[in-house]
Amino acid sequence: MISEVRTKASLAQDATAIMNRLSTEQKNTALSRMADALIAETNAIITANELDLQRGREQGTSPSMLDRLALNKDRVASIAEGLRQIVELPDPVGELLEHFDRPNGLKVNKIRVPIGVIGMIYEARPNVTVDAAGLCLKTGNCVVLRGGSAAIESNRKIVEVLKNALSDTAMPADAIQLIEDSDRASVNEMLKLNGLLDVVIPRGGASLIRNVVENATVPVIETGAGICHTFIDASADYTMAVEIAFNAKVQRPSVCNSMETLLVHEAFAEQHLAALADRFVQEGVELRGCERTASLLTGIKPATDEDYSTEYNDYIMNIRVVSDLDAALAHIRRFSTKHSECIVTENSENAERFIQDVDAAAVYHNASTRFTDGFEFGFGAEIGISTQKLHARGPMGLPALTSTKYLVYGTGQIRG
Amino acid sequence: MISEVRTKASLAQDATAIMNRLSTEQKNTALSRMADALIAETNAIITANELDLQRGREQGTSPSMLDRLALNKDRVASIAEGLRQIVELPDPVGELLEHFDRPNGLKVNKIRVPIGVIGMIYEARPNVTVDAAGLCLKTGNCVVLRGGSAAIESNRKIVEVLKNALSDTAMPADAIQLIEDSDRASVNEMLKLNGLLDVVIPRGGASLIRNVVENATVPVIETGAGICHTFIDASADYTMAVEIAFNAKVQRPSVCNSMETLLVHEAFAEQHLAALADRFVQEGVELRGCERTASLLTGIKPATDEDYSTEYNDYIMNIRVVSDLDAALAHIRRFSTKHSECIVTENSENAERFIQDVDAAAVYHNASTRFTDGFEFGFGAEIGISTQKLHARGPMGLPALTSTKYLVYGTGQIRG
Repeated sequence: MISEVRTKASLAQDATAIMNRLSTEQKNTALSRMADALIAETNAIITANELDLQRGREQGTSPSMLDRLALNKDRVASIAEGLRQIVELPDPVGELLEHFDRPNGLKVNKIRVPIGVIGMIYEARPNVTVDAAGLCLKTGNCVVLRGGSAAIESNRKIVEVLKNALSDTAMPADAIQLIEDSDRASVNEMLKLNGLLDVVIPRGGASLIRNVVENATVPVIETGAGICHTFIDASADYTMAVEIAFNAKVQRPSVCNSMETLLVHEAFAEQHLAALADRFVQEGVELRGCERTASLLTGIKPATDEDYSTEYNDYIMNIRVVSDLDAALAHIRRFSTKHSECIVTENSENAERFIQDVDAAAVYHNASTRFTDGFEFGFGAEIGISTQKLHARGPMGLPALTSTKYLVYGTGQIRG
Repeated sequence: MISEVRTKASLAQDATAIMNRLSTEQKNTALSRMADALIAETNAIITANELDLQRGREQGTSPSMLDRLALNKDRVASIAEGLRQIVELPDPVGELLEHFDRPNGLKVNKIRVPIGVIGMIYEARPNVTVDAAGLCLKTGNCVVLRGGSAAIESNRKIVEVLKNALSDTAMPADAIQLIEDSDRASVNEMLKLNGLLDVVIPRGGASLIRNVVENATVPVIETGAGICHTFIDASADYTMAVEIAFNAKVQRPSVCNSMETLLVHEAFAEQHLAALADRFVQEGVELRGCERTASLLTGIKPATDEDYSTEYNDYIMNIRVVSDLDAALAHIRRFSTKHSECIVTENSENAERFIQDVDAAAVYHNASTRFTDGFEFGFGAEIGISTQKLHARGPMGLPALTSTKYLVYGTGQIRG
C-alpha cells in the first residue's frame, strides 16, 4: 500500500506542470478566492479549532500554547488579510535575472521559475498553514503541509476550505496537500522523499529543526536557531547601547532574532554595567554572568559555556565582559549560530571590522538584531529566516521560493 | 581519538576567519604561487603519479581509467594553466547584490561572502584536485578534498606542493585539506559533518552521487546526472535537426549533457527517420527504439522503460516516435533528470511552449544540449553542473561558491 505521504506528494508533483504555466493573474485570483473562502467559512473553522483546543485542555497543554493554537473571528480575518497582502506582492516567477549573447550566436536567458513541490513541517500554529500555502502558491509551487498534530482539526478544515476555493480557478486543488497522519513517521518519510519533494522547510523549535536537518536527504532550508549577541564597545553611546540591548532582549524574547548574550567592553563595563544591568533586572530579566560581571554586579549567577550555547527564548540573558573587540569576535565565533549579531560603537573602524569579520546572516552596527525579519527588510512576506549558507540566507521573501532555468535560443549551433 | 576527517575539517573551519579577510590580490598571489609550484615540482608529481598508475595496472584498471589518471608534463602544465585562468576571473566576493534604505533610516547592504568550508568528493582524476582547490580558494572558501583512492599518491604530492606554495603568502595552508583515508567510511563521515563542512559537492559517476545524496545531512549541491532529450518537431529543418542530434549524441557521449533519447515527431519520422538513423549507425551508435521506430527501421532493438531511464554515457541511444509536442513533453516529464533538453523546430509557438513547459536546468531551441557548460556559457570556470533546484542550477561558476550576508547600518534604531 502506498502511504499517505507518498500519495499526496505524488499528486502535488503531478500538479507542478499546471502550476508552472499559471499567470500571475491566475495565481492572484486563486489566492483572493482562498481569502474570501476563509472569511465565509470562519464559523466552521472556529468550530474545528474548538475541537483542537478541547483536546489540548484535556491533555494539559500550557495556556501559552493554547493561545498560539486558538482561532477567533479576528484571527481568521487577519489570516485572510495575510493572503490578500500576498496577492499584492510582485510575482518573482518569470523574472529575467541574466541575459547573455555568446560569440557563437546563442542567446541565453536566465529566468526565475517555481521550485516545484515544497514540504513544510511546522508546529501547532494554524496561521502557518495558510501563510505557507499562500507564499508557496504565489510563487507557482505546490505545497505539502505537515503541521503539528495539536492543530489537526483546524488544519483539516482550513485546507478543505482552501481547496474548495480553487474549484472555479485555474489553480489545481492538488497543489495543496495536508498530511493528516499525526505519527512522527510521516515526517521522517517526507524527509526521504527525494524526487517527489524538491525542498523541505522546517518552521518551529530547535528539536523539530534538528530532526529535519539530521534526517533529511531531501534538500532542506534550515531556519530559526538564533543565539544572537550584542557587543557594546568602549566608545558606545550609553543611551543608544542600553536601548539597543534592551530592545534586542525584551521586545519579544521568544523569537530567534532576540539577544541571548550581551558582550560588554571592559571600559564600558567599569563605568556603566551596574546601571545597565539594573534596567534588565527591573524588567524581570534573569542575568547570568562571567567572573568579571560577577565582580561588578552583586548576586549574579555564573554563566557557563552551556549557557552561552543556549537559545533561551526567554527573559534570561548572559553578560560577558571582554577586554577588546577581538575577544568579542572570538566569543561570537565560538557560540554564534550565525543568525544576527550587533556591535554598538562610535568607532567606525571597529564597526567595519566587526561587520566584515562576523560570519552571520545579518550583522548590525548601532541597531537592534530584532530587525532581521522579512517585513522589517521590506520584503512584504517571510517564509522563514534561513540560518544556512546555501540558496538563501537571512529573511526569505518570495524570491527564496524560486529556482532558475536557462533558456537557450539557437539557430542550429553545435559544439565543436 | 579524533578522526582524520574531523581533525582536518576543524582545521579548515578555523582557517575560514582568515580566508574571509583576504583581498582579491592576496588570493590571486596565492593561486599564482600554486601554479608556479606545480610547474616547478612537475617531476615529483609525475613520480608520485607513476605509483598510482603502477598500482592501477597491477589491479587490472581499464586503459581508459588509467588514461584519466595519468599525468605527464603537458597535463601538469595544463593543470597549472587552469589555475592561472582562475586568477584572471573576477572575484565575486564582496560584490554588492542589493542595497535598500528603510523608512526608519536603516541602510541594508546584501553582499557576497565565502560559503566557508566546501567538501569535495570525487573520483580518480588528479586534475580535479587542483581545479576544485583553485575555485574554492579564489572565492575565499576553505576546501576539504576527498579524491578517489586510485589517485591517492598523486593527490598527496599535489596537495603537498600546493600547501608549500602558500608559505610566503597571506593564505593559510590549512585552507586546503586532503583526506588520505581511502576507506569509504571517511566519505560517509564527511557527509554527516554539519557545523564543520558548510556544503558537500560530489563530482563523479551516478553511484558516487547517489551515495552522497542519500546519506548526507550536510547540505549538498547535486551535480551531474543527465538523461537529456532532443525532440525533432514536424517542422524541423532536416539538416539542422540531424546535426544537432548527432552533436548531442556523439561529440562526447561520456558527459552528462550528451543526449540519451531522441524523440521524433511522426511526420518528420515518416520522411526522414531512415536517413537520420543511418548517420548514427555509420558512427557506430547502437540504436534502440519504440515500436514505431522498429516499423520504420530494420533490425532495431526495442527500447524499454529501463532504457529510457538509463544514462548510457556511451555510443547507445533510444529513438522514440511521438505523435505530437504533448507526447514529447510527457515523455520528457517522465524520464528527464532535468538537466538539458532540446527542441528542434521552425514553429516558434511550439518552441516557446517547449521552453516554458520543460522543467530542466537548461532548455534549448535549435541548439545542441552539449552547450550546458560553464565555459560555453562564458563563466570562465565550472565547479560542476547542478541538477538540483536550490542555490544553483545548471553550470556553476564562481558565484555559485558564495553565500550572502546582510550588513545593516543604523543610528540607534530599535524595533517598536
